[in-house]
Amino acid sequence: MTGKVYLVGAGPGDPELLTLKALKLLKSADVVLHDDLISPEILSFIPSSTEIQNVGKRFGHKKISQAEINTLLVQNALLGLQVVRLKSGDPLIFGRAGEEMEALRQAGIEFEIVPGVTSAFGAAANAGIPLTHRQVSSAVVLVTGHHASSEEFADWPARIPTDATVVVYMPGYDYHSTAQQLLRAGVLGTTPCAIVSQATLPDEQVHVTTVDELHASPRLPSPTLLVVGEAVRMAKPASFRQQFAWPNDGADFASHIPVLSASQERAE
Amino acid sequence: MTGKVYLVGAGPGDPELLTLKALKLLKSADVVLHDDLISPEILSFIPSSTEIQNVGKRFGHKKISQAEINTLLVQNALLGLQVVRLKSGDPLIFGRAGEEMEALRQAGIEFEIVPGVTSAFGAAANAGIPLTHRQVSSAVVLVTGHHASSEEFADWPARIPTDATVVVYMPGYDYHSTAQQLLRAGVLGTTPCAIVSQATLPDEQVHVTTVDELHASPRLPSPTLLVVGEAVRMAKPASFRQQFAWPNDGADFASHIPVLSASQERAE
Repeated sequence: MTGKVYLVGAGPGDPELLTLKALKLLKSADVVLHDDLISPEILSFIPSSTEIQNVGKRFGHKKISQAEINTLLVQNALLGLQVVRLKSGDPLIFGRAGEEMEALRQAGIEFEIVPGVTSAFGAAANAGIPLTHRQVSSAVVLVTGHHASSEEFADWPARIPTDATVVVYMPGYDYHSTAQQLLRAGVLGTTPCAIVSQATLPDEQVHVTTVDELHASPRLPSPTLLVVGEAVRMAKPASFRQQFAWPNDGADFASHIPVLSASQERAE
Repeated sequence: MTGKVYLVGAGPGDPELLTLKALKLLKSADVVLHDDLISPEILSFIPSSTEIQNVGKRFGHKKISQAEINTLLVQNALLGLQVVRLKSGDPLIFGRAGEEMEALRQAGIEFEIVPGVTSAFGAAANAGIPLTHRQVSSAVVLVTGHHASSEEFADWPARIPTDATVVVYMPGYDYHSTAQQLLRAGVLGTTPCAIVSQATLPDEQVHVTTVDELHASPRLPSPTLLVVGEAVRMAKPASFRQQFAWPNDGADFASHIPVLSASQERAE
């Protein structure tokens, strides 16, 4: 009998942000194929009898192609196994699940998609950034800096709505180019933005700046996310709130705001 | 001693899409204040000794104001209680968490935001719509049809990127106006779209059409979501895939595609 493949979101990193369904599937799978970014705490939920394979393709360090991953999924299912393909965040957001779904359909393999908490939401929750807000943000735009598994810059929409909160996944460290992309897409240079490193993990860090000053930001450990928009002014801790006066009254703010560790943030 | 408030995402509806952290907090809270859209199965996780209050403001049936909810959160925390404010989906997406955060900060109440699986991701997962796809969707745009708790139409960005997947939360039933809003924002009339009703719940239904034909869609039970974009062509089941030929070769498709129940979908 043919097995089944589950494309499962592992959430942003904190093991407590796994869904009940993801945990249940990890405990009952025959094989787990996971990305690089899955934390050891999450992998520790998997029984020791389960076959675990890292099929990660860390940015800039290609290890295994998407076609090879697709083949692994199909082959394991044809062996009659229950396969969990564990992806960080949500599987349908910049995770190339579309290509895996196509391969599974072509092979006639049954599959199910289990959504997860995307890293943008984890980052926003911990940094206290309301992604939507009646007064300043009527939309959320999710884009990626790089195509998954390549250094290739992703195409961006020509125009990004000015009254939106934008989250750039995998922004990389070429902050100058990212700022230029944002400006070309219509985002104002004075718009506040936050680099969130290792969102929801113990070593989470947040650096707040503006699009104009983004180029001078520190290279925080990956994975990172860039959150751009007026809603970033609401980020905690209190010191940010003073610098980013709310409502926006045009107050000037420092171009080099120190990086705060997650523990400082949570002590608000 | 002052208590603490947790703004917690309950996910899209399926109780298995709760996070481990949300479940832990529901089991240990003193008070749970929840929205209308929280399913009975999720509420059944709460111990019988816990005070539970529905503070829901169902579209068109206002019961309790946002200011009153803010006051309830503050008052319960000042009594020293651990308060869970349970919101459907993710608390920072069209859930007015920004206003609750402001109120809690002003009152000096400690709070924490616990992200959840947003309903758009639950809907996309079950309908098999890859929200991003290298070939057709380089961005995801989340907007809302109506402001939470009012019939007022929400402001939309003037331009929506054409190569994005758009998800409209709370689209309501004025499909004609929604289609006009999409067209004004630059979306093509031939773009496929899917109305997803009661995403991830047992009575989930999906209706696939195009922006031009959206006006003729059935009024499916709320809550609904509207997913718009070329990625909708990848929606399962197989019958959709034939009608929405992939890649887009300009094939014509029926304007009245029958509503499929979740069980039919899952039987693919």
